[in-house]
Amino acid sequence: MDLESLINPKVCAIIGASNNPATEGYRFLEGWLANEYSGKIYPVNPKYEEILGVRTYPDIREIPEEETIDYALIAVPAEKVPVEIQKCIERGVKFAVIFSSGFSEAGNPQLEDAILKIAKGKLRILGPNCIGVYSTEVRLGYFKDQPIIAEGNVSFVSQSGGITRNFIWTGFSRGFHVRAAVSIGNTIDISTSEVFEYFAQDPKTHIIAAYLESVKEGPEFFTLLKAITPHKPVVIMKCGRTPKGKIAAQSHTGAIAGSYEIFSAMVRQAGGIIVETLEELTDVVLGVKTLKDCLPLGKNTAIINTGGGIAVEMTDICESNGFSIVDLEDSTRSDLEKILPPVNVIVKNPIDLGAIGFDPEVLGKVINLVSQEPHIHNILLLHEVDRFHQLNKRFQVPDIGKIYVKTLQKSRNPTKPIIAILPRAWELLDNFTTYQNYQNELLNIGIPSYPTTSRAIFTLKKLFQYRNFLETHENNTL
Amino acid sequence: MDLESLINPKVCAIIGASNNPATEGYRFLEGWLANEYSGKIYPVNPKYEEILGVRTYPDIREIPEEETIDYALIAVPAEKVPVEIQKCIERGVKFAVIFSSGFSEAGNPQLEDAILKIAKGKLRILGPNCIGVYSTEVRLGYFKDQPIIAEGNVSFVSQSGGITRNFIWTGFSRGFHVRAAVSIGNTIDISTSEVFEYFAQDPKTHIIAAYLESVKEGPEFFTLLKAITPHKPVVIMKCGRTPKGKIAAQSHTGAIAGSYEIFSAMVRQAGGIIVETLEELTDVVLGVKTLKDCLPLGKNTAIINTGGGIAVEMTDICESNGFSIVDLEDSTRSDLEKILPPVNVIVKNPIDLGAIGFDPEVLGKVINLVSQEPHIHNILLLHEVDRFHQLNKRFQVPDIGKIYVKTLQKSRNPTKPIIAILPRAWELLDNFTTYQNYQNELLNIGIPSYPTTSRAIFTLKKLFQYRNFLETHENNTL
Repeated sequence: MDLESLINPKVCAIIGASNNPATEGYRFLEGWLANEYSGKIYPVNPKYEEILGVRTYPDIREIPEEETIDYALIAVPAEKVPVEIQKCIERGVKFAVIFSSGFSEAGNPQLEDAILKIAKGKLRILGPNCIGVYSTEVRLGYFKDQPIIAEGNVSFVSQSGGITRNFIWTGFSRGFHVRAAVSIGNTIDISTSEVFEYFAQDPKTHIIAAYLESVKEGPEFFTLLKAITPHKPVVIMKCGRTPKGKIAAQSHTGAIAGSYEIFSAMVRQAGGIIVETLEELTDVVLGVKTLKDCLPLGKNTAIINTGGGIAVEMTDICESNGFSIVDLEDSTRSDLEKILPPVNVIVKNPIDLGAIGFDPEVLGKVINLVSQEPHIHNILLLHEVDRFHQLNKRFQVPDIGKIYVKTLQKSRNPTKPIIAILPRAWELLDNFTTYQNYQNELLNIGIPSYPTTSRAIFTLKKLFQYRNFLETHENNTL
Repeated sequence: MDLESLINPKVCAIIGASNNPATEGYRFLEGWLANEYSGKIYPVNPKYEEILGVRTYPDIREIPEEETIDYALIAVPAEKVPVEIQKCIERGVKFAVIFSSGFSEAGNPQLEDAILKIAKGKLRILGPNCIGVYSTEVRLGYFKDQPIIAEGNVSFVSQSGGITRNFIWTGFSRGFHVRAAVSIGNTIDISTSEVFEYFAQDPKTHIIAAYLESVKEGPEFFTLLKAITPHKPVVIMKCGRTPKGKIAAQSHTGAIAGSYEIFSAMVRQAGGIIVETLEELTDVVLGVKTLKDCLPLGKNTAIINTGGGIAVEMTDICESNGFSIVDLEDSTRSDLEKILPPVNVIVKNPIDLGAIGFDPEVLGKVINLVSQEPHIHNILLLHEVDRFHQLNKRFQVPDIGKIYVKTLQKSRNPTKPIIAILPRAWELLDNFTTYQNYQNELLNIGIPSYPTTSRAIFTLKKLFQYRNFLETHENNTL
């Protein structure tokens, strides 16, 4: 069944809507209104005639007949859910989204069985124990504190509502945006695979990201994944990896997590990118979103910066992760020597430009020369944003960052990934804003940034693996 | 020779002082003045009579005889350094600090030999290729953009000026402060060990941190380290670990870095804490500074938070790093059940308090009960600071963070480490300030915070190793 009405619903009901701000039955309604959901909303609760100015119905069956209810969010105690499911069926609701918890994750799988028995063949169910759908297309948000700011092209499938919210927020902060998110909870009916399939076919979803604890339909899922990854990158954060983690996952979503080793090997084999923490997930999504059409062709890397100690640290991190800091060609070195002063500069990879490296013109020339070396696949460029205010003074410009961005845009080779390392040392309010602006301007020209080399290299490694998968896949299908 | 006059000099000269703001000979002077250095400053340059309002001398030998010059910073081209060294000797300078580069790191070791030959037995030399001393005691700073804000108890020894500046800045941002830093550069005379020894004996230095590429006097250094670590924690970031990193280190400070495996094993054996990246260094220094008197007695860990998915992630990270998320005692569980609602709460470790966990009173009771369990050694507490503004509204208070801090202070067991995990998701300006305030208030009550569980556990692991070393050492000396 097509999930279009679930993910971009035109009419939503909320069973268990409330005018008590401490309840989720209030907070969802408040959130939908605050985000100016583009469809119609029908709160349901026999206690109220109106909540937050919206006419409220005592029973979902009393909502005017002519409406087709796409999405009924159920936020009542678990034991009352079966009755509401029955009413949804009678009313002809398309999708029930069960927010309530207290099911298999709480040791009550029989309640899930009861619901499934009632709904079978009559009503599709998302959850239970989920926060449902976030959809920028119809402006269906979660809560008021999480405004819909921008429409992106990353769609998210998640067994955790908290991680979904965190992922969207982190995306906003790091400069990528979520198109839609589906919190799938205990997945008693609508499966992980079905949601993946929807996003696979959604033309506005360019990347699929996921937080998973277990996938009930393993073989089906991996077959599907294999079909998606040649066209759309998929990044999966898998938890419930350790024995105690599996127990925690079971308490969370009733998940029976199998072997992580097998799961992760299957994901990799199917061309998916697997990660283990939320930071890794957001880092890799940022990288794949920004460099999708400019994946690294190899692991030979050039480091360009303005300080010797950090160059040594960066070199060690690259090399110990298999990224070679290769020697520059003699011709490049001699070209570099022509434009650089004879002292306080190291014209070897890692290239330490010293103070002259702050000069945008010099930087541009260096980037240009290094980008032309065919055996260098990636460039790591370190910029200390906390020095920008001082550099503004030195170069008598209002925003040196904007000048670096223009320079990079002109001088780079667009087929060769550049990753910016922007250490976050001197975290003042001013620097914070400068950092955010610079990060976003770099993203606009296809350069993702990371606060540490370790995080950049972790991401680059995943992108390189993905590129290798794509190459093998292409060869296979020739 | 005692380094007191080097690290807390009363009279400083700067040879190569300049009134050109683009030069370091200007920037050092400007920085010393801006930070209100408590001693006397004598700029030296035959071209000027005055720089930045300070009377300037044509030659260091012409500075009035009655002054004892403790610290002469030399910022002239490398080939002119020997002559200036000779003048310093004639003038009776105590310490020459050679900022200039262009020595062994640039393939000119003979210039170092020449200097050593001149200075032998007559003048002690720091560097060359270093930025010298940062000392809060006498307010001797580096540059104007790096104001001396607070005096701390962490002292830093570093072969990189850039990393020194970054370390100080990051410390400010993370909530720890540097007492003094010595950039040692190529260490042709004053050795790494001598600086370590000074800080070992300095009563106001409680922790020694270092960035090292090589230590020329290996055996002496490890003997010294062994003597320091039972009394003061020492955290060493070692780079030049990989073959290419060693080459980069040689271009940076002329360092001949030996085997990292041997070096790191020796550091560990001597009770030092070894790390590989700047992020690890600042994370561990923050941890050891905050938890020095409350080191973890074991690896059994309790997780307390308000969301299920993150609890699973945290559990996996702890367990896969050897930190056990142990079961709670039955008595603790039943005590917890008495104060917690029956739904939306998981009264198992990881403890998921759900929405009730935002209530400071409930949180306090939970912390209190968990802190009393003798077999739990550490508590990880997750707080989503980006929700604080919303919680302020919910609890009708101006600053929920302050209330959590008071609650934690009252309810915690002061001998048991609590580490706060403060994810940085929704990075708005408001949240940034809230984050900084909350981090600093937690530090005041002995709780360090980390943005991710991985970083917290990395730190906790290092602290546990250090505690084990201390225990073994105590047993040995009985």
